[in-house]
Amino acid sequence: MAYQAKKLINDPKDVVTECIEGMVETYPGLQYLDGFPDIKVVLRADVSGSTFDKVAVISGGGSGHEPAHAGFVGEGMLTAAVCGDVFTSPPVDSILAAIRAVTGPKGCLMIVKNYTGDRLNFGLAAEEAKSEGYNVEMVIVGDDCALPPPRGVAGRRGLAGTILVHKIAGAAAAAGLCLADVTAEAKHASEVVGTMGVAFSVCTRPGHVTSDRLGPGVMELGLGIHGEPGAAIADLLPADVVVSHVLKQILSSETQYVPITRGNRVVLMINGLGTTPTMELMIATGKAVPQLQLEHGLAVDRVYTGSFMTSLDMAGFSISIMRADPKILQRLDAPTKSPFWPVGVEGDHPPAKIPVPVPPRRTETHDEFSTQPQELSEQGCILEVAIEAAAKEIIRLRDQLNEWDSKVGDGDCGTTMFRGAMAVLEDIKKCYPLNDAARTINEIGVTIGRVMGGTSGILYEIFCRAAYASLKGTPQVTSKQWTKALDAAIAAVSKYGGAYAGYRTMLDALIPASTVLKERLNAGDDPVTAFVLSAEAAWSGAESTINMQAQAGRSSYVSAEMLASAPDPGAMAVASWYTAAAFAVQSKLRAPKD
Amino acid sequence: MAYQAKKLINDPKDVVTECIEGMVETYPGLQYLDGFPDIKVVLRADVSGSTFDKVAVISGGGSGHEPAHAGFVGEGMLTAAVCGDVFTSPPVDSILAAIRAVTGPKGCLMIVKNYTGDRLNFGLAAEEAKSEGYNVEMVIVGDDCALPPPRGVAGRRGLAGTILVHKIAGAAAAAGLCLADVTAEAKHASEVVGTMGVAFSVCTRPGHVTSDRLGPGVMELGLGIHGEPGAAIADLLPADVVVSHVLKQILSSETQYVPITRGNRVVLMINGLGTTPTMELMIATGKAVPQLQLEHGLAVDRVYTGSFMTSLDMAGFSISIMRADPKILQRLDAPTKSPFWPVGVEGDHPPAKIPVPVPPRRTETHDEFSTQPQELSEQGCILEVAIEAAAKEIIRLRDQLNEWDSKVGDGDCGTTMFRGAMAVLEDIKKCYPLNDAARTINEIGVTIGRVMGGTSGILYEIFCRAAYASLKGTPQVTSKQWTKALDAAIAAVSKYGGAYAGYRTMLDALIPASTVLKERLNAGDDPVTAFVLSAEAAWSGAESTINMQAQAGRSSYVSAEMLASAPDPGAMAVASWYTAAAFAVQSKLRAPKD
Repeated sequence: MAYQAKKLINDPKDVVTECIEGMVETYPGLQYLDGFPDIKVVLRADVSGSTFDKVAVISGGGSGHEPAHAGFVGEGMLTAAVCGDVFTSPPVDSILAAIRAVTGPKGCLMIVKNYTGDRLNFGLAAEEAKSEGYNVEMVIVGDDCALPPPRGVAGRRGLAGTILVHKIAGAAAAAGLCLADVTAEAKHASEVVGTMGVAFSVCTRPGHVTSDRLGPGVMELGLGIHGEPGAAIADLLPADVVVSHVLKQILSSETQYVPITRGNRVVLMINGLGTTPTMELMIATGKAVPQLQLEHGLAVDRVYTGSFMTSLDMAGFSISIMRADPKILQRLDAPTKSPFWPVGVEGDHPPAKIPVPVPPRRTETHDEFSTQPQELSEQGCILEVAIEAAAKEIIRLRDQLNEWDSKVGDGDCGTTMFRGAMAVLEDIKKCYPLNDAARTINEIGVTIGRVMGGTSGILYEIFCRAAYASLKGTPQVTSKQWTKALDAAIAAVSKYGGAYAGYRTMLDALIPASTVLKERLNAGDDPVTAFVLSAEAAWSGAESTINMQAQAGRSSYVSAEMLASAPDPGAMAVASWYTAAAFAVQSKLRAPKD
Repeated sequence: MAYQAKKLINDPKDVVTECIEGMVETYPGLQYLDGFPDIKVVLRADVSGSTFDKVAVISGGGSGHEPAHAGFVGEGMLTAAVCGDVFTSPPVDSILAAIRAVTGPKGCLMIVKNYTGDRLNFGLAAEEAKSEGYNVEMVIVGDDCALPPPRGVAGRRGLAGTILVHKIAGAAAAAGLCLADVTAEAKHASEVVGTMGVAFSVCTRPGHVTSDRLGPGVMELGLGIHGEPGAAIADLLPADVVVSHVLKQILSSETQYVPITRGNRVVLMINGLGTTPTMELMIATGKAVPQLQLEHGLAVDRVYTGSFMTSLDMAGFSISIMRADPKILQRLDAPTKSPFWPVGVEGDHPPAKIPVPVPPRRTETHDEFSTQPQELSEQGCILEVAIEAAAKEIIRLRDQLNEWDSKVGDGDCGTTMFRGAMAVLEDIKKCYPLNDAARTINEIGVTIGRVMGGTSGILYEIFCRAAYASLKGTPQVTSKQWTKALDAAIAAVSKYGGAYAGYRTMLDALIPASTVLKERLNAGDDPVTAFVLSAEAAWSGAESTINMQAQAGRSSYVSAEMLASAPDPGAMAVASWYTAAAFAVQSKLRAPKD
């Protein structure tokens, strides 16, 4: 069924002039002639025909092929581009205006894609310009390899290979060559390039409805760039098969579209037809290069991947292959200020890309030497008690945490925490160096990172790593240092988690706990009392998350009603393990002494 | 209804690694770490961490945003990009691998878009790298202006404005700044940029079906770059209205997303979301710049138009606005080898673009001084007789030519030729300088160019122009010169029309006529006899187009049956007017003498 395509346009009749306006707004090196709507010519802002001391290179044709042709105007490539209406050859007067605007004493070369309208309009303009005394030459590019090869260029359409011809001619002109030599290089280039395209969708002309010619699951081989039907319809195939088919067709020794044989050097262009994402073009490139090398025996000297010669909003791509020689490579590598000629492609390609080995870590920070010590110090015993109590409390609370979480999230908070707690209980006996609190905290992070997963897993890992960094090198940890480590851990969770107090996260338990801990220690309370009191603060904080307005991104996922019914499970988990640890430490320290 | 999108891919699980392979095939300056599939890191081929004497700038995140982030790796921009699976944050180990691969003594800055997964994974990697002794800083970019502004960066998603931050940080690093200063510049840049997007279609993850969330005729405002729903749905509007809405939202003085007020200087980025053609992006740019200048009172210093941060195959665009200052402009203008940073944007933009006046023609070649002379020379009389006879014959044959044409074409050959012939008869009395054969032929071209239209109109105009160029400056034309002019005219028609003998065109009458004319003159026949005999050859040629195999492009449109039933109308028209002219000349010259 035909439908109206969505386009970011205003009046369909203004698309070309408005596109040109946007181009010159973007690129200060481009200008346009004041002749809208009939004369739509983009030219180098720094060139005036009367004084231009190089051969001018002009191209153009119907619009709808952006960035072609205006996007290739710039020093070292096109001097001017003549833009027709969408898919319509530009009128003779606009071509003449372009010739007059940029052609100096050295004359101008017009590069024209092989379509009857373009050939005739550019041809007539050339004849008229000659009668005005200009030196004008014309090279017609017909690089299409989709249709059965007729005699000469006639019938072979001009496709993306034309862009390579632009570059070669533009570089030759920039090098100061005379018109005859620039023309000869362009003509030669046009004779050694072949292109074939594959479409996944048709294109829609602005203001028109979309044809339903190309239905689901099929593609069109050998398409043109104006929405005209391709040579054949086929079922959609994986990228590497499609690429293989197109390469074989272009390089067919039977049809001899291009004079390329095994052992030749080539340049490759993978061209998007308008709406094919960069990712997919790159995938095609990644398959085309080794196929050219291994199956066709060709050295690939340069690869150009991008959308250069499009067909409005058509999905699909074309492959162009040009026989390379040192002169052509020199021209393709020459610098240009043309905005859409790809950057970073020049220079020699290795015959095969060998990836860089993954570098090793600088130092071994843990794992290796971590084991449970033979005998625990007093602090080691306390640490063991605290960790075990915290873990067991989390294990006990699994279903309750899941229930709270199911009211505001995906209901797996308890399960995730349970997984981490079980692994901690397992690892503590095996490998935690409990006499070294810093390294033990780090090991808890390793355990959690290995088994917990999810956002909370990473946050707890960050919590442990930051606490480790704070405690590192402190064999006997004082209560002040514990406080500092807790602060560092909270800061890291807040920084990387992007949450603050009041965001309904674990921080709503951690921050009050930390605040009270510092307050009580400063007030002179003994560490254990301070610890227990801070656990109470953690509980108050966690419970305050009921009815708390959630901040930031979470607000869009959780409704006010949901929030009103449950505390934040992350904060409740913290309050639980923190309290369990505090009471365990209290009973361990006080029981024997009392 | 959900449907399967057509993609140029192989196995959906391989899209990211295959995309990276294509990237490094295209750009010899890029390399990747040998850690597929878990470690997907693209880095500068010329950088090794152990020896790198600049601050490394690393970014990354989920894939599907190509060319971001790998396409921005290159001297002067990113040192490495860490690629996750599609829309999935990269794992900590792959980020660590990137840090280790490119970070030298000056340390590294990680630029991270504000998504929880990225913040946590990059954050954890940063903490681990620090424990290995690396200097690591992190700047989080949250430039989204679509959601109600929360406190701080939290909740504001990282969008295309991140690319500008990459460039500024990369240029600062390339300039040799220390980690603290590079970080400060990146942080400042992230605080003065705002972005908002509009989607016309959803995106489809490889291997998934396409959601039907965004139906015909509507667009989504304030979208994210992972296919998550936008802030609001609205009816599709013209480009200038959409642009206006987005600019107002970003620059809202109420929400104060960005610290930009009237009189500020800004840079503008129009970013395509994956499948929006260059033409449409340029149209948006062409509207955004004057709106920023005139409605918001901002000077637009730089404009970046392209697809930089995409969302797979999503159609739509985003606008980013950054407050500019001399330091930021210096960083944005600094050279870079990153393949996808736009070329040709740097440098001062004029406050308003004034197009270049259309240049005048060099010399007046006709029209002005052309009038029918008071008294005709003998040659003038003969020319008049020949032209009138030829024109009248075409007028007489209108319906017959249309009938022939209807069998092989669109049936308007007679009507088109009739229009030209009528105008010639009208103009011949008014303005043809009949005593000057060259200029008269040229004037016929002008007449035909004005009224005939179509391919045949242009071909006849080219025919006349080329004959004129051959005859120019020859007041008394000899039969030899006529022959030469006919040859030149035929050559031009063949060159620009792309046809040769046997292609079923007017050339199939013209070429035999020209051949016989030359033969008879060389054989010593008198010119009139030679003319008449050549007319017979034109007829034979025209009639031979029946059953002639059409060549080239036409073969695809005209079936063999159609061709077998009629001669080529263009060739028949030539034979007709040519013969009429020959007999008219014969009777004019012989009648009085006999």
